[in-house]
Amino acid sequence: MRAMVFTAPNTVEMLDVAVPTIAEGDVTITVRAAGICGSELHGIRHTDFRKPPLVMGHELAGVDQDGRRVTVNPLLSCGMCDRCSANEEHLCRGRLIIGIHRPGAFAETVVVPKASVYEIPDSMTFETAAMVEPLANAVHALRLADPAAGSRIAVLGAGTIGLVSLLVALEYSMDVTVCDLSESRLKTALELGAIRSSTELTGEYDLIIDAVGAESTHRTSVERLRPGGTAVWIGLLSSSTGFDGQEIVRDEKRVLGSYCYTRSDFERALSLAEHTPLDWTTRFPLELGATIFTELMDGRQDVIKALLCPAPGPVKTRSLV
Amino acid sequence: MRAMVFTAPNTVEMLDVAVPTIAEGDVTITVRAAGICGSELHGIRHTDFRKPPLVMGHELAGVDQDGRRVTVNPLLSCGMCDRCSANEEHLCRGRLIIGIHRPGAFAETVVVPKASVYEIPDSMTFETAAMVEPLANAVHALRLADPAAGSRIAVLGAGTIGLVSLLVALEYSMDVTVCDLSESRLKTALELGAIRSSTELTGEYDLIIDAVGAESTHRTSVERLRPGGTAVWIGLLSSSTGFDGQEIVRDEKRVLGSYCYTRSDFERALSLAEHTPLDWTTRFPLELGATIFTELMDGRQDVIKALLCPAPGPVKTRSLV
Repeated sequence: MRAMVFTAPNTVEMLDVAVPTIAEGDVTITVRAAGICGSELHGIRHTDFRKPPLVMGHELAGVDQDGRRVTVNPLLSCGMCDRCSANEEHLCRGRLIIGIHRPGAFAETVVVPKASVYEIPDSMTFETAAMVEPLANAVHALRLADPAAGSRIAVLGAGTIGLVSLLVALEYSMDVTVCDLSESRLKTALELGAIRSSTELTGEYDLIIDAVGAESTHRTSVERLRPGGTAVWIGLLSSSTGFDGQEIVRDEKRVLGSYCYTRSDFERALSLAEHTPLDWTTRFPLELGATIFTELMDGRQDVIKALLCPAPGPVKTRSLV
Repeated sequence: MRAMVFTAPNTVEMLDVAVPTIAEGDVTITVRAAGICGSELHGIRHTDFRKPPLVMGHELAGVDQDGRRVTVNPLLSCGMCDRCSANEEHLCRGRLIIGIHRPGAFAETVVVPKASVYEIPDSMTFETAAMVEPLANAVHALRLADPAAGSRIAVLGAGTIGLVSLLVALEYSMDVTVCDLSESRLKTALELGAIRSSTELTGEYDLIIDAVGAESTHRTSVERLRPGGTAVWIGLLSSSTGFDGQEIVRDEKRVLGSYCYTRSDFERALSLAEHTPLDWTTRFPLELGATIFTELMDGRQDVIKALLCPAPGPVKTRSLV
């Protein structure tokens, strides 16, 4: 089958690869839409976390072997460790992610555990269904922060995770400010319901979601909190923490890391997706995957969320290159 | 009256000063014990937060003008700002602290608002009553973290705040490890109920209280958490955050700043103090204040908590120097 493969640092290639093997409990899905995640654009600069050769892609929707229209929770947990026992399966000691630790969805087909598959409503497009995974990240982040009604919320970054964080934040509060350097992304944020947009965050907030994770956004996420406020970090751009370690004590601020989602967060995201505006994605044929991925990586392509969409129809099987 | 005065960077002196003026709602207290706080030892290196000339001292017990044996909550709030309205009076926009923003208790007498005074039980010594303030810091920190029963807790630092954190942590969990570089302080921690003591923290914890606030303890407080664990920072030694900003996301850890206490935390500390071992303090006559303070500051004096105790009896009034 055709797949976009991470083959070496900074390199993805369209290749013919073997259809993944099916083990007991697995199911084959014909991919109809698979989103390119910012973590993949950054992640392929090194070969430590994601190891080439690898078919990436963990945001996906498609049709399973029984003809059901589905999306997939790509986070696999052992179900037995202390974190799984504490209903924190996203922090599982042996957690694996489809598209990172096993072949993902930038391909004509992907094989996933049957238990990870969720049927989607007839009315939901594959494009929307592929957005349930990023949306689940935002559901989780906001649940961790649990802002009081009427909270002043700011979101740093108007990429995919920033915008889905905005959409979920609007479920908690109408007062959501979005900050980004791109005026066109800020325009999308305002169209989606942000009350304010800015290229530099001013004022004071009860809750700030850092969907970037740069040193500067880490700093801003703490500095712009009111005393006693909460910063939630989802972005993974930098290891630098940026903020003043004494300020967090004197003003009793909180910094919460947020990683992925639990199964119930994923299910809530699937339910939310039915009435949430998620139609700001851009489709590309799978065959253009390597070009689009490389352009996004190099900053030459400005779409917020690119979805790679294999042409519908029977899956072609070819020999492994 | 005699008082120990912060007169210039790194300098405290015993002086004759005027008895503080009494305004409406104030009460005069004859000081019987006043603890020297680590924040004062570090704080007088600069003149930005505490401004000389200043009588410091915010941990105190004594006798009020009606002869009642009392301790004092030194944190004064406006009662009107957004933080006070949210029952976060310790984060009051106009908060003032006795011994920082108005004359404190390293003196024969101190004048405080009547509303800040708490009568102490007959059975409680002045030495114990002066420890209610540091104890309240620990009550607050543990309340913020709210560890589950049976949690593995570590406390970094076996100074006063570390040891009171240990004592309050024992109310939540029997599994408390204390870490410090001083073997004699670790011995005290074990005597007070720590299950384990160490000069270097190993293993994995649900909750880590950083009662030091150095770059190295900030780092350790995050690194040694289990996935999903919580670090509470009370110490104020350094602005350096020390930890990896990506680790906090990938392992979904939390860093909570903790500052002072609310009125109810202070009242809970007063109640806890009745049955909590707080007799590891050391008394010094007020007249030795400048010597002891300077020795503590320079690391030539190893007592964990020095209490300055003016000789009981009528307050001598002398002319201002």
